[in-house]
Amino acid sequence: MTGTSGAEATKAGEFGFIARHFRPLAGPESLDLRDDCALMRCPAGEEFAISTDTMVENVHFLPDDPPETLGRKLLRCNLSDLAAMGARPHAYTLNVTVPRGGRHDESWFAAFSRGLSEDQKVYGIQLIGGDTTSISGPLVLSATVFGLLRHNTALRRNTARPGDDVWVTGTIGDAALGLLVLQGKLRDPSGFLAERYHLPRPRTGLHLHGIVSAAMDISDGLIQDCGHIAEESGVQLVIEANAVPVSSAAASLGHDWLMRRLCGGDDYELLLTCAPECSEALQAACQAANIPVHRIGTVRSGTGVRVLDAKGRDIIPEQGGWQHF
Amino acid sequence: MTGTSGAEATKAGEFGFIARHFRPLAGPESLDLRDDCALMRCPAGEEFAISTDTMVENVHFLPDDPPETLGRKLLRCNLSDLAAMGARPHAYTLNVTVPRGGRHDESWFAAFSRGLSEDQKVYGIQLIGGDTTSISGPLVLSATVFGLLRHNTALRRNTARPGDDVWVTGTIGDAALGLLVLQGKLRDPSGFLAERYHLPRPRTGLHLHGIVSAAMDISDGLIQDCGHIAEESGVQLVIEANAVPVSSAAASLGHDWLMRRLCGGDDYELLLTCAPECSEALQAACQAANIPVHRIGTVRSGTGVRVLDAKGRDIIPEQGGWQHF
Repeated sequence: MTGTSGAEATKAGEFGFIARHFRPLAGPESLDLRDDCALMRCPAGEEFAISTDTMVENVHFLPDDPPETLGRKLLRCNLSDLAAMGARPHAYTLNVTVPRGGRHDESWFAAFSRGLSEDQKVYGIQLIGGDTTSISGPLVLSATVFGLLRHNTALRRNTARPGDDVWVTGTIGDAALGLLVLQGKLRDPSGFLAERYHLPRPRTGLHLHGIVSAAMDISDGLIQDCGHIAEESGVQLVIEANAVPVSSAAASLGHDWLMRRLCGGDDYELLLTCAPECSEALQAACQAANIPVHRIGTVRSGTGVRVLDAKGRDIIPEQGGWQHF
Repeated sequence: MTGTSGAEATKAGEFGFIARHFRPLAGPESLDLRDDCALMRCPAGEEFAISTDTMVENVHFLPDDPPETLGRKLLRCNLSDLAAMGARPHAYTLNVTVPRGGRHDESWFAAFSRGLSEDQKVYGIQLIGGDTTSISGPLVLSATVFGLLRHNTALRRNTARPGDDVWVTGTIGDAALGLLVLQGKLRDPSGFLAERYHLPRPRTGLHLHGIVSAAMDISDGLIQDCGHIAEESGVQLVIEANAVPVSSAAASLGHDWLMRRLCGGDDYELLLTCAPECSEALQAACQAANIPVHRIGTVRSGTGVRVLDAKGRDIIPEQGGWQHF
């Protein structure tokens, strides 16, 4: 929370704002948000995994989304990237660009930082720095998140091999359906789908080094993200649509929503490839972390992604950007 | 440039955009911007200094500012924070939030990234990650910059001692006057002042550990930033207004602009405190880096900032936020 440009109109206001809402979140590496930089050390034999994301009002969240969940969603999207690399969460910086006009008042920011505080405890992370600015426009939030992992243990996207199986954690498509619920296009009396949209559950705490051959997090939609692994690894991913795990809330909506589930974004589950001989180790590691995991397909020689129905026939996704691979 | 939310409308467009404008800037730690995170190692005995800043169109820069200078200014403001801690520049992440409507087209971004590329060479840094998003609103740019320094060598704000002298690098107030020139409120045929507003010169490359007692960069205005050192160190800073170095372009505008120079922001020079017995070492270190340095005052017991005229009388600054300390 230092180094802001002198172009800001109300410095005194900004310092107080930081003291009230952000200093309580700051760890020792932040130097209490009182100096020009944070200082962060790396344990011997380890390295930092770094991910950064921006969320923009009306693009990534809605103006009346609960403020408690906004910062948490931003953190969790980044933490999901750390999980995909196999890094354990450590710290984050936060850039908050606040609309002029006072709509985001003291109580809004108190709730916002309360949400951050809660997730700091859940994931064992602390704020180490940031910046606050104002805008004639929508709220913009950026976070850069730091994880730690031992040298040469990062899980990569470019190491899937023909013959591997394809696996996913959790259930797929809930957040995409949750957005439709929030937009009034779909009904879900359970509230489960909207909750999955508001608050992803990044799969940190898994120990998959030496077990899986490749990993990434599913943020753009299952099929598009399968395309990323296919492209980066120079392989083809074949997905059995009926094997893709579905929540009971999503299943109750019927088969019509299958393609939306496979192509929708914001799952923040892990997409993994794993040699068949490591299947048991993968299932044991996930069970130890209490995270469901299901096999959904196979890695083959070739390019791109194929999606098969129960009879082994190709399904052409009706939406999604994966065709460009 | 990974982990973007699935809420983005044109993923294919985004991937191409990143490949064209940002991949050429990316260093090996970025994993070619193709994976979930960057991976960054720290040399033994060193730690990272981390600074983050956001710049918003119409707040921190003007819509018709040259795109080449925008990314450079963002980097340089952060690099100035590294310089203030005594860290050497290493890498950065970049979050770009682009207004919808196409005003920022291919040629705009080509120029923007050309500017970044130029400063990557000047400062020896590489892009390691980022995010691109869209906004119905102004352009928003955030950067998080990483520097390296040896353990326990960081220059701090809270270590000035009574009896030290106060020093500054370069000349003070040029950028604040440059903004007035750009707003048509002041004339500067030399172009020097506007250039100082567009393109700060962070004072990286100085080796001041063991020489100065405290340091910070001057971004909020000299007097306000003196207030920060005074507050953090629990001392009083006494500044001799006539000793504050002035550029010839600023001097030619006359004495009327003194207070604007002392209170205006965006200097990105270093504010240093130094025991008198280390004065020669400080001057030698600055000379070795070809950076001008001038003594402008004294550290005393007490609180706050006093500004004295040539006759030793207190001057009350007519603007600036420092009174709240």
